[in-house]
Amino acid sequence: MKKRPLILVTNDDGVSAPGIRNLVAFMQELGDVIVVAPDKPQSGMGHAITINNTLFINKVSKENAAVTEYSCSGTPVDCVKLAVKEILHKKPDLCVSGINHGSNSSINVIYSGTMSAAVEAGIEGIPAIGFSLLDHDWDADFEATTKFVKKIASEVLENGLPKGVVLNVNLPKLKENEIKGIKICRQANAFWEERFDKRQTPLGKDYYWLTGEFVNLDKGEDTDEWALKNGYVSVVPIQFDLTSHHSIQELNTWKLNE
Amino acid sequence: MKKRPLILVTNDDGVSAPGIRNLVAFMQELGDVIVVAPDKPQSGMGHAITINNTLFINKVSKENAAVTEYSCSGTPVDCVKLAVKEILHKKPDLCVSGINHGSNSSINVIYSGTMSAAVEAGIEGIPAIGFSLLDHDWDADFEATTKFVKKIASEVLENGLPKGVVLNVNLPKLKENEIKGIKICRQANAFWEERFDKRQTPLGKDYYWLTGEFVNLDKGEDTDEWALKNGYVSVVPIQFDLTSHHSIQELNTWKLNE
Repeated sequence: MKKRPLILVTNDDGVSAPGIRNLVAFMQELGDVIVVAPDKPQSGMGHAITINNTLFINKVSKENAAVTEYSCSGTPVDCVKLAVKEILHKKPDLCVSGINHGSNSSINVIYSGTMSAAVEAGIEGIPAIGFSLLDHDWDADFEATTKFVKKIASEVLENGLPKGVVLNVNLPKLKENEIKGIKICRQANAFWEERFDKRQTPLGKDYYWLTGEFVNLDKGEDTDEWALKNGYVSVVPIQFDLTSHHSIQELNTWKLNE
Repeated sequence: MKKRPLILVTNDDGVSAPGIRNLVAFMQELGDVIVVAPDKPQSGMGHAITINNTLFINKVSKENAAVTEYSCSGTPVDCVKLAVKEILHKKPDLCVSGINHGSNSSINVIYSGTMSAAVEAGIEGIPAIGFSLLDHDWDADFEATTKFVKKIASEVLENGLPKGVVLNVNLPKLKENEIKGIKICRQANAFWEERFDKRQTPLGKDYYWLTGEFVNLDKGEDTDEWALKNGYVSVVPIQFDLTSHHSIQELNTWKLNE
């Protein structure tokens, strides 16, 4: 009998979010699950780590629970580091992060705590996937994603991933039978056009809320944005070698040493 | 007479750090400078943004100061967004971040608030550079970096940067005449081997400090780590399209839709 894989589950919406509750349930069908997730929402935390503050871990599952769960006072990236070094004392066979309440497609990948947790696992050599549903609602229909989340996770458990690569999976807000399939994509070249909502404190001091509009000028039909808009689950292979290799030659024509 | 360029200066060590004080002085020789930097240390904040909290801006320079300076309650990335949208109301000609107290070479780029500020400027279409000195000391010798920082910033003002690319510049802890020159490099394939320093609160509860050792197994002589170890300033072109384009073909051989 093949040994059941060990699957680490984390997220950025916090350990009690419906998205991670669903992901835990899906993963229990594929392996032995352990949860280490933030004790509070950590959306937009990107690849932040806690270096100027202390970190606390709390066991939040009951003694005889099917899944052992911990909450952590730090960021999603801290959760992965603590899980490997202080809780598991070994690398899991797979790390899945999410299911995020809201999109992490295109440039959102860079701001996303969900994806940064997956990237951190990737840096540590663990096959890793971030899952996000295009629905911010706390009552979002995560059931509709079951088939696709399990399929992608099974394939990664079966095949592993190319070295230095993690998967950014986004799921459209559709019923299961409306989803056309899974597409491998590139990150659309889009950005946020920020607006700041300026207000005043009761004492008359200005403050701001970050808000904005997502702008996609990328017309490519091979992008994650195109796939999602057309009813597909998008899968973007993400790397953490950030070098723009093709720019090296151009920069070498500069006269930097004269 | 050519118009003086407008240069936005930010960092992650906070507005009062010696590193940014030096960078401001260097940039004043190249253009008109405006500072928007965090009001407190924000090291290790990665590409975090503030979406679940308010943002405050304070003008910290005196009325007749040569450089107008603002501190901001948010992350380095927030500083760039606020600078463009609420303070300048236009894009500067250049954004420089740093000089960081400590290395941002190799995988550190992904955890770095300094580099994330530069990347954010790049996403907004602003030529951008992050500078870091391999010396954590508050009294580090930033003077030694003058020639190289000014040279690289001048070249970027002159040539612009390839689309979708920002520069990650690291400077060795050497005297100016000991530095051999500037090298265009790729990001070394290195990582942090974490250790957690476990302690107890006075009430007996465990807590942790993140610590660790930098491990570079990459023997390439074209990496930033090699350049820095051999007395060069390293310049890595960094991109924010995280797609692993060469993996798309491999993933397309998977049977995801069966």
